[in-house]
Amino acid sequence: MRGSKLYAPTLRDIPADAEVISHQLMLKAGMIRKTAPGVYSYLPLAWRTLKKIMQICREEMDAKEGQELMMPIIQPAELWKETGRWDVYGDEMFRLKDRHSRDFCLGPTHEEIITSLVRADIQSHRQLPVLLYQIQDKFRDEIRPRFGLMRGREFIMKDLYSFDKDEEGLDINYWNMHDAYCKIFERCGLSYRPVEADSGAIGGSGSIEFMVIAQSGEAAIAYCTSCDYAANVERAELKALTVQSETLKELEMVETPNCRTMMEVAEFLGFKPEHAIKTLAYLTDKGPVLALVRGDHEVNEIKLKNTLDCLFLTMADATVVRDQIGSEPGYIGPINVKEGIVVADHTVMNMVNTECGGNKKDCHFINVNPDRDFKPTIITDIRLIKEGDPCPRCGNPVATARGIEVGQIFKLQTKYSKSLNAVFVDETGVEKPIVMGCYGVGVSRTMAASIEQNNDKDGIIWPAAIAPYHVVVVPVNSKDGRQTELAESLYSQLTKAGVETVLDDRNERAGVKFKDADLIGYPLRVTIGAKTLEENVLECKIRRTGEVRYLEIEGCIDTIKGMLAEL
Amino acid sequence: MRGSKLYAPTLRDIPADAEVISHQLMLKAGMIRKTAPGVYSYLPLAWRTLKKIMQICREEMDAKEGQELMMPIIQPAELWKETGRWDVYGDEMFRLKDRHSRDFCLGPTHEEIITSLVRADIQSHRQLPVLLYQIQDKFRDEIRPRFGLMRGREFIMKDLYSFDKDEEGLDINYWNMHDAYCKIFERCGLSYRPVEADSGAIGGSGSIEFMVIAQSGEAAIAYCTSCDYAANVERAELKALTVQSETLKELEMVETPNCRTMMEVAEFLGFKPEHAIKTLAYLTDKGPVLALVRGDHEVNEIKLKNTLDCLFLTMADATVVRDQIGSEPGYIGPINVKEGIVVADHTVMNMVNTECGGNKKDCHFINVNPDRDFKPTIITDIRLIKEGDPCPRCGNPVATARGIEVGQIFKLQTKYSKSLNAVFVDETGVEKPIVMGCYGVGVSRTMAASIEQNNDKDGIIWPAAIAPYHVVVVPVNSKDGRQTELAESLYSQLTKAGVETVLDDRNERAGVKFKDADLIGYPLRVTIGAKTLEENVLECKIRRTGEVRYLEIEGCIDTIKGMLAEL
Repeated sequence: MRGSKLYAPTLRDIPADAEVISHQLMLKAGMIRKTAPGVYSYLPLAWRTLKKIMQICREEMDAKEGQELMMPIIQPAELWKETGRWDVYGDEMFRLKDRHSRDFCLGPTHEEIITSLVRADIQSHRQLPVLLYQIQDKFRDEIRPRFGLMRGREFIMKDLYSFDKDEEGLDINYWNMHDAYCKIFERCGLSYRPVEADSGAIGGSGSIEFMVIAQSGEAAIAYCTSCDYAANVERAELKALTVQSETLKELEMVETPNCRTMMEVAEFLGFKPEHAIKTLAYLTDKGPVLALVRGDHEVNEIKLKNTLDCLFLTMADATVVRDQIGSEPGYIGPINVKEGIVVADHTVMNMVNTECGGNKKDCHFINVNPDRDFKPTIITDIRLIKEGDPCPRCGNPVATARGIEVGQIFKLQTKYSKSLNAVFVDETGVEKPIVMGCYGVGVSRTMAASIEQNNDKDGIIWPAAIAPYHVVVVPVNSKDGRQTELAESLYSQLTKAGVETVLDDRNERAGVKFKDADLIGYPLRVTIGAKTLEENVLECKIRRTGEVRYLEIEGCIDTIKGMLAEL
Repeated sequence: MRGSKLYAPTLRDIPADAEVISHQLMLKAGMIRKTAPGVYSYLPLAWRTLKKIMQICREEMDAKEGQELMMPIIQPAELWKETGRWDVYGDEMFRLKDRHSRDFCLGPTHEEIITSLVRADIQSHRQLPVLLYQIQDKFRDEIRPRFGLMRGREFIMKDLYSFDKDEEGLDINYWNMHDAYCKIFERCGLSYRPVEADSGAIGGSGSIEFMVIAQSGEAAIAYCTSCDYAANVERAELKALTVQSETLKELEMVETPNCRTMMEVAEFLGFKPEHAIKTLAYLTDKGPVLALVRGDHEVNEIKLKNTLDCLFLTMADATVVRDQIGSEPGYIGPINVKEGIVVADHTVMNMVNTECGGNKKDCHFINVNPDRDFKPTIITDIRLIKEGDPCPRCGNPVATARGIEVGQIFKLQTKYSKSLNAVFVDETGVEKPIVMGCYGVGVSRTMAASIEQNNDKDGIIWPAAIAPYHVVVVPVNSKDGRQTELAESLYSQLTKAGVETVLDDRNERAGVKFKDADLIGYPLRVTIGAKTLEENVLECKIRRTGEVRYLEIEGCIDTIKGMLAEL
């Protein structure tokens, strides 16, 4: 491709609305343009990189016996009503009506469609296992689309679905996909980490996320500083902490005038926050809920929601607190409430002679002893992990980091096959629901994540495997016939040798060409100048390291191919 | 790929709702499944063929310096309002609102998006020409989706847009694309014909459609039996027919009791339909319209709509005829109407002493002489061509045929660049609108059209270039170790040699395997049976001709590759 023809309109200034580096650089390098919030056009450079990521996905899916197909974007509401997700998805789902007023959505995911396909065409165990995948646009009406391609409303995903006879089959495919995903992210040149994850709206029993570690990541990860445990903080399990035993004292109510926060009460009564119970009031579709954690801990709302198996969960307002729970905002506690499911973190149950809200203004209980003074409805792990907490596997302290989720795998089990009645007849003639897994790679997000990990002040640094082009050939002076002649010859030889090359034949100053080469992030830049010509060598700069090598013109094509293979 | 793993759920019966052969065969061969009316999932076989068609498109677009990008599916209403097409598109456009109640549509086409991209990033003549394309899903809410992939509501299209400085540049790219399209359809193995076309809702000045000739085609084509003129009947031009001169007679009104149709009047008054004027009343956004053609001719509503440049055109009802036009249904004529644009086909103006409706019940005028007795608002060509009409180019009679439109190219000129203000500064510093063209291939429709042209009673007959696989290897008896061993060896050798092969290792009777092989339409079927083993030869059947060749096992891979190259 000639630079004078390449449609890569680079920008000199950082666009105002771009917060993260990948967003800034893709706009500057003329790779993407915004059409609407969270909706982008991929210009030729970005599209080349995306096609390479898609091809890597394809090869790794095919290697595990995945078969590619393509499902529709517009999906009829009926199928989503069968699984109950038409209501669950809420505002995040783009909905529309056709000319006959029939309801459709734009596929945020394809479990419903694939399961309905398979239920019509699979009857026997002999047709299993089967793995089907697609690389398709997905649509989610994010409340706050942001960070460029990180959280878009229209984005590209590779999604594979596995169909098995039993748990063992699912297990094989789940770990096969784990392996394939590791290969995909390695081939894309990413430094990533698989972490235990919550399965969220997709559902099912087990899930792993593939996280690219980056400061700009929206996800928080906890990982053990000693063993290889790592998990999304949403998911990270915590064992109950123990405390020193003490003689139980008599429950007492004390006045705590104008002490509404944990810190105020603690100071007033002279105890540390970790000695008290913190009670948070929520409203859910299952009624009001009181969540109890130790005073210095935070509630993990994902765990709480999973525990309650509820559709929505929001903080309760004053009216709910007063009228339904029978308490007073700022003074909520688990003792003698009128109504509400009480969910206690298991650490709370180990606390002795602790404090909690008194359920009336300016009052707190002291010498509270859980189980003796109140009986929670549910006792489980509902707390959010934090730096320094013990690793659930080995007990050593965990550290935390930010990550970008680029892939996730799920053991769906029979969640969808049961609700959509996708069954098969096994070897013994018994009808059973198909056992499913699903596996997604955020293709457009992977491109952005790669840039988050691979950039410097001058621009993008592409790993060779997903670079839009491998080499840019820059004649320093485009008016010097000898330079342009050699550049043309090199360009045509490289292209013939299968090296994806841009010849920067634009009538621009060398400085502009160098700046654009660094910004776009070609792995290698070959410069042809007066000096190099005289000495019969080419200057070849490695974008990642900045290292410059001088190559003999004779045999340089092979040298360049060798350098690319190294990268 | 092993037949036992291949996800191609074939059906034995023709599905009830499939009217055309391509639809029937794709369902039977396990290639597609319906998700909703006009919305299909492409199963692995279809998706392989589609990827091949897309790759052919890509190569031919790249060969003409097209650059691939990808634009979004959800498009903001604002852009469509700028060009005025938000209203024009009507019910055919899928519309939706996001969570903030902002209006979007699902792209039925991408002129608005591409022009808005280019207007932001192109400023100078030095950036022109540029050709950008994508292969993308398109959405049109057809009033009656039908014929499987022929007229779907979600379908795949390759669309390229050219941007030039001037008319000459557009002309070069337009004919370059014409050439590329011929290559695409040739490489896909289609018998096709470029025909002159109307540019419809897309707009612009010139357009050619690429038609696959097939009985099931929805389009009608007129072509000259002598020269190479061919056009969509919507578009086919007609010169004015002449008649013998006669002395003009006095206009007279006569009673024609109960004669409402042309035939009844003709019989009653004793003339031939071609001697009378037929008047049709329409209602349009520009008011009532009377369209006049010779009695034996038909009005071409596309031409009429283009002539009037109106947004809608429907037959006028009795109220409009009586109250606005001041006439009487069944007796409409151009003389003394109250209101209405009178559009006369130019042949009408050559008629002498003709007849027309009298604008009151049971009355007709005779000895009508156009121009003397009424003055049309517009005189032009508004008639529909028919078999035997003179070719507009050479005058010899035309024939008609049915066709499937698989591609169309348009000279848009400055229609979109003007309305969206996409301008550039030319060599002399003058700001000018960019001159545009657009060029579409119906990718999914091309697959269906190929099947319409290539099938027999047993199934599909794929051209090798777009066959999902090239060869199927069938061991006749899957319990015979020698047969399966040879089949396995052949399968692995063929695969290694780059021949896309299916090994039908299913535990099925030979008859079932042969039936499926014919249905799916593999270009070559290699059979391994007891007899062929004894004689040390393979039976190789060519799907298209039914010809059977016996190949020496030694060197058979090269022989098979040679046979495929022939196809």
